[in-house]
Amino acid sequence: MIANFTYNTPTTLYFGKDCIKDLPKVMGEYGKNVLLTYGGGSIKKTGLYDKVKGLLKDFKIIELSGIEPNPKYDPSVIDGARLCKENNIDVILSVGGGSVLDCSKAISVCAKYDGEGWDLISGKVQAKAAVPVVDIITLAATGSEYDMGCVISNTAINDKRGYLDPLLYPAASFLDPEYTYTVDKWQTACGTADAINHVLEQFFATPHSTFNDGIMISALRSLMKNVKIALKKPDDYAARSELMYVCSWGCNGILANGSGYSGWPMHSIEHALSAYFDITHGAGLAVITPRWMKEILSEKTVERFVKLGTDLFGFDNDLSDMEMAQKVIDAFYSFFEETGIPMHLSTLGVKAEAIDEMADHILNNDSTNEPWMFAPLDKNALVRILNESM
Amino acid sequence: MIANFTYNTPTTLYFGKDCIKDLPKVMGEYGKNVLLTYGGGSIKKTGLYDKVKGLLKDFKIIELSGIEPNPKYDPSVIDGARLCKENNIDVILSVGGGSVLDCSKAISVCAKYDGEGWDLISGKVQAKAAVPVVDIITLAATGSEYDMGCVISNTAINDKRGYLDPLLYPAASFLDPEYTYTVDKWQTACGTADAINHVLEQFFATPHSTFNDGIMISALRSLMKNVKIALKKPDDYAARSELMYVCSWGCNGILANGSGYSGWPMHSIEHALSAYFDITHGAGLAVITPRWMKEILSEKTVERFVKLGTDLFGFDNDLSDMEMAQKVIDAFYSFFEETGIPMHLSTLGVKAEAIDEMADHILNNDSTNEPWMFAPLDKNALVRILNESM
Repeated sequence: MIANFTYNTPTTLYFGKDCIKDLPKVMGEYGKNVLLTYGGGSIKKTGLYDKVKGLLKDFKIIELSGIEPNPKYDPSVIDGARLCKENNIDVILSVGGGSVLDCSKAISVCAKYDGEGWDLISGKVQAKAAVPVVDIITLAATGSEYDMGCVISNTAINDKRGYLDPLLYPAASFLDPEYTYTVDKWQTACGTADAINHVLEQFFATPHSTFNDGIMISALRSLMKNVKIALKKPDDYAARSELMYVCSWGCNGILANGSGYSGWPMHSIEHALSAYFDITHGAGLAVITPRWMKEILSEKTVERFVKLGTDLFGFDNDLSDMEMAQKVIDAFYSFFEETGIPMHLSTLGVKAEAIDEMADHILNNDSTNEPWMFAPLDKNALVRILNESM
Repeated sequence: MIANFTYNTPTTLYFGKDCIKDLPKVMGEYGKNVLLTYGGGSIKKTGLYDKVKGLLKDFKIIELSGIEPNPKYDPSVIDGARLCKENNIDVILSVGGGSVLDCSKAISVCAKYDGEGWDLISGKVQAKAAVPVVDIITLAATGSEYDMGCVISNTAINDKRGYLDPLLYPAASFLDPEYTYTVDKWQTACGTADAINHVLEQFFATPHSTFNDGIMISALRSLMKNVKIALKKPDDYAARSELMYVCSWGCNGILANGSGYSGWPMHSIEHALSAYFDITHGAGLAVITPRWMKEILSEKTVERFVKLGTDLFGFDNDLSDMEMAQKVIDAFYSFFEETGIPMHLSTLGVKAEAIDEMADHILNNDSTNEPWMFAPLDKNALVRILNESM
């Protein structure tokens, strides 16, 4: 069944080799004053920085560089918003991965707000306007290029917020798979693990439909197949192009319109891990996934596992449902391990002493134990998942 | 591989039971002067007309009724455009199936054009503006509610045009599956056949990708499963909701972004059949489909058939490729027959004497024999397909 939903993604996707040739035309629709945002400077090494500057030679460009992997409200968002105001910025061009884009999205609303920007990000005040954001994506992972979310940290008050607003949809996203050739094995594996988890968070929900189940299983099949190719051959265009496209579908709803909302419990757990130990998001998700699956496996949920077993992995129908589910859990474990992710939180630097506190943190900061959820997790369940993940 | 593409669908989908409660808010964004368009009056029998008028009691409503199943430039589009101009219409509300919506889309651009509207529809002049169109869909089939196309007939000059322009995307589409409960068996079967054909026109193309193949096979699986349920139990919400949602994906590109464009040859053939003998579009497509498949089956194309055989129908991998392809062709034939569509053009009223002329008509009016196509069709091939379909 397809349950009630509303869907709109206004972003235009420009996809493929050399697609950024259209950048000047697209940017020109918004104006000539550009805030160019990027991270640590890898785009200078790859030549993308020079290419963009060449394409935008008729524009006035102000730069904000050094945006962090977990983008910070102070200084990045604050600085960006100030630069927009001081320079009458017409459009923000984000060049990089999901962190640079998330930061740029936060800047886009703060630049149109006279008060304290954190009030918008923390949901205290509703944003009314935003500077248009155009992005060039260099890492396939978060799907930020096609969704209305961003995740911003405020270290001064130990807060990290996921912020959702339709104003945060990029106006246009440029996705050239060749820009991901230089993404190393670790980031390729972790980016794919993030995308796989986006699909699973939506797959484990009710109601189901033949159509959405098929789309999500197709996304998983594509990600799992193509990441293995890309890890062996980083410049395989076919593999990189599928990874890039599928990742972009992760978080805007299109994978599962009319399927239920599960609350994204694995993301809730991982956000605590990242907050406490600054581990790589996709790696944390990969480690948690099979342990979360084991925790929620029940007579009620087993149908979802069986669906993955038969349709994704092609396991033998003669297995009992519970045997099939266990094989699915093992298959995900082995898959992530094969992509090079160490499947223990201890290896990633997480300390067992923090588990109890993290479980409380998750319950206090996220919803994992609501009755409407597909599989609510109380504190004991969270502690079990975290212990098993060590 | 995902090849280069650009994608944007600005339409907002409002989906599900009672979704039209949001109609006044959505319509109000555009203004108070509404042109309400509908067909032969079935919406009065079902009560939808009264419901809409009740919801829009604060709006000024001008009506255009009697829009034809194959909507006509004269009188419907001309009348609608005149009504828009005379009454300063802010927004068009289309209530009905794809024909009413196609007509409304044509009206929307002609209303903003001072010259002869047919010049826009025939591609002689590029439209520059359109009145926003909102629709309530009562028949799952064409996908017009989520695409930028319309098909309009000009009987005065024996012309029928498919007209594409981004201005033709509806602003918002309301899809309540309950409104399709009253769709009879024939229209349910033909609407689904149309949607199945939309998928197949995109599936038989190169390049392929794991992701897009999976999406399209999922769409086929959902349509083929749910139409059988809806034919037995017309008020099965789960079945009707999937049919309605999947149909909406038919023609806006989302099924196969970055897969090649095939030219939609089955639609080219069927448009000639409809033009000469006014047969139901979906029925004509159902009859043609297995015969077109047989015609294009070759060493080059057989991989597509094998993919359908294994992934959609679950046929035994031990079959030879050509045996598998033949089983796929037979399976589609049987499927359409089971839904109640007579699988011979003669039964639908087509005369064999017209085949030669229709083949010339297709070659003159559509592209079926271009070298870039997945499987070009010359006149002999078209004649063979039509003869086999009799």
